[in-house]
Amino acid sequence: MEDFNEIVEELERLIEEHNYYGIKNLLKDIEPADLSLILQEFPKKIGTLFRLLPKDLAAECFVEMDSDYQETLLSSFTDNELKAVMDEIYIDDTVDIIEEMPANVVKRILNNSDSETRKTINEILKYPDDSAGSIMTTEYVSLDEDITVEDALKRIRRTGVDKETIYTCYVTKPDRTLLGYITAKKLLLSDDGMIISEIMETNVIFVHTHEDKEIVAKEMSKYDLLALPVVDNEDRLVGIVTVDDAIDVIEEEATEDIEKMAAIIPSDKPYLATSPFEIWRKRVPWLILLMLSATLTSLVITSFEGKLVSMGSTVLIAFIPMIMGSGGNAGGQTSVTIIRGLALEEIKMGDIFRILFKELRVSLLCGATLALATFVKMITIDWLILNNIKVETFPEAALISFVVSLTLLVTIIASKLVGCILPVLAKRIGFDPAVMASPFITTIVDVLSLLIYFGIAFAIM
Amino acid sequence: MEDFNEIVEELERLIEEHNYYGIKNLLKDIEPADLSLILQEFPKKIGTLFRLLPKDLAAECFVEMDSDYQETLLSSFTDNELKAVMDEIYIDDTVDIIEEMPANVVKRILNNSDSETRKTINEILKYPDDSAGSIMTTEYVSLDEDITVEDALKRIRRTGVDKETIYTCYVTKPDRTLLGYITAKKLLLSDDGMIISEIMETNVIFVHTHEDKEIVAKEMSKYDLLALPVVDNEDRLVGIVTVDDAIDVIEEEATEDIEKMAAIIPSDKPYLATSPFEIWRKRVPWLILLMLSATLTSLVITSFEGKLVSMGSTVLIAFIPMIMGSGGNAGGQTSVTIIRGLALEEIKMGDIFRILFKELRVSLLCGATLALATFVKMITIDWLILNNIKVETFPEAALISFVVSLTLLVTIIASKLVGCILPVLAKRIGFDPAVMASPFITTIVDVLSLLIYFGIAFAIM
Repeated sequence: MEDFNEIVEELERLIEEHNYYGIKNLLKDIEPADLSLILQEFPKKIGTLFRLLPKDLAAECFVEMDSDYQETLLSSFTDNELKAVMDEIYIDDTVDIIEEMPANVVKRILNNSDSETRKTINEILKYPDDSAGSIMTTEYVSLDEDITVEDALKRIRRTGVDKETIYTCYVTKPDRTLLGYITAKKLLLSDDGMIISEIMETNVIFVHTHEDKEIVAKEMSKYDLLALPVVDNEDRLVGIVTVDDAIDVIEEEATEDIEKMAAIIPSDKPYLATSPFEIWRKRVPWLILLMLSATLTSLVITSFEGKLVSMGSTVLIAFIPMIMGSGGNAGGQTSVTIIRGLALEEIKMGDIFRILFKELRVSLLCGATLALATFVKMITIDWLILNNIKVETFPEAALISFVVSLTLLVTIIASKLVGCILPVLAKRIGFDPAVMASPFITTIVDVLSLLIYFGIAFAIM
Repeated sequence: MEDFNEIVEELERLIEEHNYYGIKNLLKDIEPADLSLILQEFPKKIGTLFRLLPKDLAAECFVEMDSDYQETLLSSFTDNELKAVMDEIYIDDTVDIIEEMPANVVKRILNNSDSETRKTINEILKYPDDSAGSIMTTEYVSLDEDITVEDALKRIRRTGVDKETIYTCYVTKPDRTLLGYITAKKLLLSDDGMIISEIMETNVIFVHTHEDKEIVAKEMSKYDLLALPVVDNEDRLVGIVTVDDAIDVIEEEATEDIEKMAAIIPSDKPYLATSPFEIWRKRVPWLILLMLSATLTSLVITSFEGKLVSMGSTVLIAFIPMIMGSGGNAGGQTSVTIIRGLALEEIKMGDIFRILFKELRVSLLCGATLALATFVKMITIDWLILNNIKVETFPEAALISFVVSLTLLVTIIASKLVGCILPVLAKRIGFDPAVMASPFITTIVDVLSLLIYFGIAFAIM
């Protein structure tokens, strides 16, 4: 971070001095990912600065920028400049950029591409969002099965410069049917005269163009792949997904799950680039739904309130938030653990009874600990010290504390079982388990815990 | 998944028939990651099955297994078998296995390694958990700066078979000081006679052995690296981290953050492999802490309760859970968004005022929407339909609904600001922001919302 600020200050100084040579020198060795952030600090000068970059760095830096800045730059480009940048970048990045641009900019990009590229772009654009097809690149190395290692290496040397990766090469029939793959490592370590079909791996892991990109990332992570081939319905190779894109997907999916768990509708825009109105749209639906469902808790309280007042037991009301909160926290812990386990495939649907039994034991342990702690706390802190429980004798205080503690025990067991069942149930009926996290569980547990509380209170007191 | 079950059934049948040839044939083409799961379904036969695998597949499969099964297998191995497996696997995997094994097994592994390997293992074991040193491998390709491309390729062909990756080669001085790197792609695409020092990249991104592995993964993700060099305090290259390990770190870190957000102390064991007692230990501390801090809500309620009863306003009590719940949900949404933004470095410390201003506007929008929705809902559903608000006239019902709605507005604004400030504050004082998620926010918001509620109620009614 200090580096970053130093470079920005240095750049500011050079811009003021109109020292273009100095700027060129300063920027030429910065990593594209950092450079894009630095240039974005100078929105008014971004076009000038961009034109001072070497061609390949300019293109790599352009890919890393936020779409707003990309749009500004694209609008300022001449057709030749636009063509120069677009020729340098990989086709999957071009598609990503196009997806964020307004129609007139898209039209300009397509008009300045050759007909082959234009065709490919249009094909990739047709794949559904979040599919393997939408994140793949069509720039991979393909080899014929009957050539030698020497010929293969020659082919890589001839065509490799434009390929996103040369480290996994795909062996295909002339009609592009996928036969196998061979790594650059294997090629380099094999004798020149060997035939590809004899040394290639035929046990290929691949996905179809319509496969969810989350599955793509999971397969790549599970099998430690640097690239995963994507085939069409006729099993013809149409592209590959590279590991850097898989990492982006893994991070996005974790963010989405976290957002869903916090009762937010996921968005794929970074927070700072999202308007308050958009954020409101992602957050308010769940808030309203959960608010409405809290009508049940109001109903339960209202229907028992009169009885509590007439029994002189209004002291019990003071512990409602603590019981509800503990139940929500306990249920949230379980549901989040199960949701993440399902997402990482550490937990499978068939494990439901093992999980239930485990959570039952955990909830007994947690419930008993909390019940005991609450009992001691209520007698000492609430009754003796704070005089928060307004009764005179120890038996009275002990009775109230006992009711609260017993409620807590039962509530925690119930909450953890609810937190365990709901995500699995959601998955079974085809919903995303992540929605069944704390806020949702809390709403159910709130009602449950009140019913348990009043049930126990009226039974005992 | 169906494949998985089919293979397991087929294997069961073959085992019953003692058809070892069939078993060999069935298992030899399965991916190691899947094979480990399949073998773990046969805990009693795992040793026999394992011995039917080809040597390299056996080793790769062993690396993928859960540590319990690894231990079982290691105990059943003869010294020769143990040596055969350990010779096949990469040194970073060996270290991972050793870290999970009891002392006697570790001793056997070390006794069966050659002295060079033993020295390397012991050095890696010295690095702190979660450091770059602890996840690196020492098996990388290093090149001298003054050799030609042809010599470099020859060297890779000679030594590459034991290296975890040959795709990024590191150029070092004879004392192992890191000078630069060159990719296998660049080597293949360059002329044979060129000198490495002329074509290598000197702008190397590297980390020190003690760097947090989370930073390692972030750098690799940010710069799209397949491998990241690790240097010691004298800037000498000691190892590299490969992208497959970085992906594991990214997934682990997301899981840890999610666990912390749900008030669970993170564990690095899979859920199903953790005993109920261990799970209890990870969950109960936060439950107790949050339960204790709820003493404050009890205090607030107790001190206002008498007044409510004497005013005949006990109807207000029924809406406490809804207000608290909405405040907790609203605050949780904000805190989780900020926490994730900080983790992904989309939000920086310097952005605090921008975030606050944005959250203020979002909370006004959310608060106003919810207040309005609540008012309408209380008049229609609670008063007219359910008779949940026990008053006779519309002005009385409207007054109560107004108090609740206004409270909701103020509570949501307060909750979102708390949810925004606490994670940033935590980060500033060096705490993990993830701890400041929903459960923690909820406890603070509970007290806040009660004070706001009673404050507004007594001011207006």
